[in-house]
Amino acid sequence: MEPKTSLVSALFLFFLLYGTLASPTLKPSLKPRPPPHHPCRHLVFYFHDIIYNGKNSKNATATIVGSPAWGNKTILAGQNHFGDLVVFDDPITLDNNLHSTPVGRAQGFYIYDKKEIFTAWLGFSFVFNSTQHKGSINFAGADPLMNKTRDISVIGGTGDFFMARGIATLMTDAFEGEVYFRLRVDIKLYECW
Amino acid sequence: MEPKTSLVSALFLFFLLYGTLASPTLKPSLKPRPPPHHPCRHLVFYFHDIIYNGKNSKNATATIVGSPAWGNKTILAGQNHFGDLVVFDDPITLDNNLHSTPVGRAQGFYIYDKKEIFTAWLGFSFVFNSTQHKGSINFAGADPLMNKTRDISVIGGTGDFFMARGIATLMTDAFEGEVYFRLRVDIKLYECW
Amino acid sequence: MEPKTSLVSALFLFFLLYGTLASPTLKPSLKPRPPPHHPCRHLVFYFHDIIYNGKNSKNATATIVGSPAWGNKTILAGQNHFGDLVVFDDPITLDNNLHSTPVGRAQGFYIYDKKEIFTAWLGFSFVFNSTQHKGSINFAGADPLMNKTRDISVIGGTGDFFMARGIATLMTDAFEGEVYFRLRVDIKLYECW
Repeated sequence: MEPKTSLVSALFLFFLLYGTLASPTLKPSLKPRPPPHHPCRHLVFYFHDIIYNGKNSKNATATIVGSPAWGNKTILAGQNHFGDLVVFDDPITLDNNLHSTPVGRAQGFYIYDKKEIFTAWLGFSFVFNSTQHKGSINFAGADPLMNKTRDISVIGGTGDFFMARGIATLMTDAFEGEVYFRLRVDIKLYECW
Repeated sequence: MEPKTSLVSALFLFFLLYGTLASPTLKPSLKPRPPPHHPCRHLVFYFHDIIYNGKNSKNATATIVGSPAWGNKTILAGQNHFGDLVVFDDPITLDNNLHSTPVGRAQGFYIYDKKEIFTAWLGFSFVFNSTQHKGSINFAGADPLMNKTRDISVIGGTGDFFMARGIATLMTDAFEGEVYFRLRVDIKLYECW
Repeated sequence: MEPKTSLVSALFLFFLLYGTLASPTLKPSLKPRPPPHHPCRHLVFYFHDIIYNGKNSKNATATIVGSPAWGNKTILAGQNHFGDLVVFDDPITLDNNLHSTPVGRAQGFYIYDKKEIFTAWLGFSFVFNSTQHKGSINFAGADPLMNKTRDISVIGGTGDFFMARGIATLMTDAFEGEVYFRLRVDIKLYECW
């Protein structure tokens, strides 16, 4: 390789990389596939939801608060629960045991939003106040809950999770009839401050 | 220039520069207008909402699930529907024809939130699972729906829309009584990964 | 420069750039503590919430629209209002006086979400349309409202607050029985466009 050639190669390499960095203005179809992203923070938790059914008021962590014309507040409605709005305050654990010491609370709501199959829309927070984590992580997104895994957005965070953004992958880890379910939440943050 | 004057001048210059550096605290009206931003991705869709009215259960894509004391679940309430909470699973199309093949579903909720005029608050997702798009776009924001156009936030995305942020401009493209409306959604992403 | 050396240099350049790009993958515990962040914009507002109780329909700015099986639409439910969903359209003022000229409206919802103490989950917007501010700021997050201050996320903005992100610190500035409360909202934006 001659010096001149190597200079050309170096310049070529430079513009190649420069082009990659400046790419946001390129149309998506013209963009090369981006390299896979690596999270700056990765956390795994479980949370446990026990829906009030008229008899379990002591153990229930969630309750129906809105329902369609054909529904009520103690039994999830027909048509795949379409229209049922559930508020929850669920314990968060580090493993899949409901009776493990909670490390925080999952608080918010979900709404079943499809007549043909089970799907839901979620808006909730993980609220932590322990020696390990202080602060909250806020989530929103669609949950096509019959899929093995599904992704929602981490839309913000406070305290230890100040300004966080990322993706949370949900997985139904267990469910028992229409009263109990357990979700595994795999949180990958791609913006950490 | 006498020494004293020059000291005052120097101090003045110092505070002038200090003020410039500390500019985030300047009042917005004093800030120079930022250059216009260009989206890194631009998408246009339509979605179609048919509200359940007690008679159209087969076609309905949305239903009232919460209402104020003066409302019910099959007729939108008085006072500009203030307090009506609607859950929806609406088809998304590429043009304004309800009968075009859907390219995805708009899923989530809206709440009418003003007594004097029609306004709403929206939390929903566009969910895609086709050859063209896989993944979801999550939205939230206020919809002063009597305005010709109104902007809400793209608060996140997954799959093809991984970590997206941006603005969605809504436009009521058609409405028929209190049962059907069609929204045009102009999505401009300013953060693309 | 010999060919071999220039190849080594090019590789060095490549890994240097690669390392810079890949740096987000460091584990948080290995990262140096970040410096404290300074907001690029800081705003303080108050908003005022008057809940409909069956008698105050003229003054009410908020109403219960969802409730648990043991609740109703005119009285906040037992068990710390767990399950009550409230829609609001509250005046925003610059000081703590309910009768000051509003500079905008706070519109959205909150849900009481814990049986043992008062906590809520909030999704709402500040909507401005004055000479001073045009546009909206969108918020979401958990509100453990018995705490003196609590942080929620600014998840987006439009108009003058285009693409904003940040933290809003809430403080209960006053409350009167179960009908009126006033929140002080300290908005610190860390992403300004």
